Amino acid sequence: MKKKNFFTLFLQKIIGLNIIHYQQEFLQYLKSKNWIHEPKNLYEPIDYILQLGGKRIRPVLTLMAADIFSSDYKRAMPAALAVEVFHNFTLIHDDIMDDAPLRRGKVTVHEKWNINTGILSGDAMLILAYQYFENYEPVIFQKLAKLFSKTALEVCDGQQLDVDFETRDDVTINEYIHMICLKTSVLVAAALKMGAIVAETNEENANLIYDFGLNLGLAFQLQDDYLDTFGDPETFGKQVGGDIIVNKKTFLYLKCLEVSSDADQKKLKHFYKRKLDDNSIKIAEVTRIFDLNDIPVLMKNEIENYTEKAFDTLTKMDITDANKDNLKTFGLWLMNRTV
Amino acid sequence: MKKKNFFTLFLQKIIGLNIIHYQQEFLQYLKSKNWIHEPKNLYEPIDYILQLGGKRIRPVLTLMAADIFSSDYKRAMPAALAVEVFHNFTLIHDDIMDDAPLRRGKVTVHEKWNINTGILSGDAMLILAYQYFENYEPVIFQKLAKLFSKTALEVCDGQQLDVDFETRDDVTINEYIHMICLKTSVLVAAALKMGAIVAETNEENANLIYDFGLNLGLAFQLQDDYLDTFGDPETFGKQVGGDIIVNKKTFLYLKCLEVSSDADQKKLKHFYKRKLDDNSIKIAEVTRIFDLNDIPVLMKNEIENYTEKAFDTLTKMDITDANKDNLKTFGLWLMNRTV
Repeated sequence: MKKKNFFTLFLQKIIGLNIIHYQQEFLQYLKSKNWIHEPKNLYEPIDYILQLGGKRIRPVLTLMAADIFSSDYKRAMPAALAVEVFHNFTLIHDDIMDDAPLRRGKVTVHEKWNINTGILSGDAMLILAYQYFENYEPVIFQKLAKLFSKTALEVCDGQQLDVDFETRDDVTINEYIHMICLKTSVLVAAALKMGAIVAETNEENANLIYDFGLNLGLAFQLQDDYLDTFGDPETFGKQVGGDIIVNKKTFLYLKCLEVSSDADQKKLKHFYKRKLDDNSIKIAEVTRIFDLNDIPVLMKNEIENYTEKAFDTLTKMDITDANKDNLKTFGLWLMNRTV
Repeated sequence: MKKKNFFTLFLQKIIGLNIIHYQQEFLQYLKSKNWIHEPKNLYEPIDYILQLGGKRIRPVLTLMAADIFSSDYKRAMPAALAVEVFHNFTLIHDDIMDDAPLRRGKVTVHEKWNINTGILSGDAMLILAYQYFENYEPVIFQKLAKLFSKTALEVCDGQQLDVDFETRDDVTINEYIHMICLKTSVLVAAALKMGAIVAETNEENANLIYDFGLNLGLAFQLQDDYLDTFGDPETFGKQVGGDIIVNKKTFLYLKCLEVSSDADQKKLKHFYKRKLDDNSIKIAEVTRIFDLNDIPVLMKNEIENYTEKAFDTLTKMDITDANKDNLKTFGLWLMNRTV
């Protein structure tokens, strides 16, 4: 365990500088925009959510891809901003739908203002995202906007599937993977491809970096599911056991139903029908059943599979070996974050 | 009065065929699209609102403009659809914000399903609207998407101002005109200009038809305000007196505050602070104060001013006189609909 932490720190150190550089440049660009203007009640919530923080992973991906394919990441800044503004639009509307009181430790937009403000400011952000593409000439503009529309619609589809799954008892693992792919991975993939489009690399490279992002995004989301139950409470940002508390049928649960005995399945299903005030026993018991059925190992295999798939796309990419190493190191850094 | 009705019928007759033709062609195109696919819970509400009916004025404007500038209105069909889908997206989200139970005599989307469905299906419609522009080559695509984003954001601004005005006592007439311009007119103007863009007419024509639509849209909205109080209950689609019941500070109210005696201003302000179960006395009294202060005449002057402004732009347009007549006749038809 200690060795792994050291390895993580080492990786963060060797590639950390660049990522922090992209983050800082992006934040500077974000702050250079004058978000608040009339009507203030529409734009103040937009400024609020965009200043809430976060790792800015998606815009960093856009800048990184542009840097790799053209060495001119600054040209990708408006596209990176579009991705970040879109992502934050989904956060505002999702938080309304989930009735979430907090986001990144601060009150959500609809709690600070009201639901109507959340809806309208969110709508405006979706439109603003498209406007940033106007910084590019027509052919690139159309490529970006097309990819963006396709991606945004897929994210809506994913959100709807996530809602639908809550009331379904027959969700398959494939359906679950499809849902998280739409809800999370396509935006990671599109963020990278947008950098490739701005850099005007060839279509094959652009598609390969998309696939790299899609698989890495899946691995990342599955790891998020894993950490939600098996993460270190000290380092995991959210409450460990959160998914179990709200009966979220993640990969862990679905895989366990697939491989466990009838008795374990019955117990699991029993727990996942209940909402409790004190969840300590439920979390402990469900985690124990997952452990007994080797779910952590099965899950880690799955995560490794998707990570490997992502890295496989790198071999086909027409970029320098140094850049391939950079992308691989970034992937490893992302996947080793807080295990 | 009889003469006016006859005039209206006459106008509807001479240009009716074309408008009905555009309407029918548009409806056919709308129905040729396969709206419902997976996830059904996301797309069924979209199909529902788009089939609710309505006069389809905005897409008809796009087709009409394309016809006038290029004689090829069919090419403008995807742009017309974008306008209609966007308009219906605003209806879904506005109905949530207004807590409206009915839309065109049928239950609203958030009532038939729920608020979350209304939010997400609306979001998807905004994205779908952009996707229809993908039918055009890059330069036209970018022109359409730019105009669309600008317009959509203005509509959001207008909606926010409308909300802001509810709790303000110092709204000026200029502010009110600015608000309805953003909330209503810019989309009418943009619908026409999109037809001009698809028809690849020169920029001056495109800007002139935009101005034509902007002024006609203002005249139309002011007439809507007028009819809301002074319309014939037999022919006006909505409840006469509706704006008075909900204390909406329209042009009538603001103009009356400007020109009436202190005593009338006091009475008006008194009525506009109250929400009543029985509104018959309130409607009668407020209408009487408007009448006493000649507001109907002042308002008709204002409507005529904007209509004249709209028609003035026609003289500068580089199109045949026959087409200028067509646009003028259309404007007259629109303004004479249900007086």
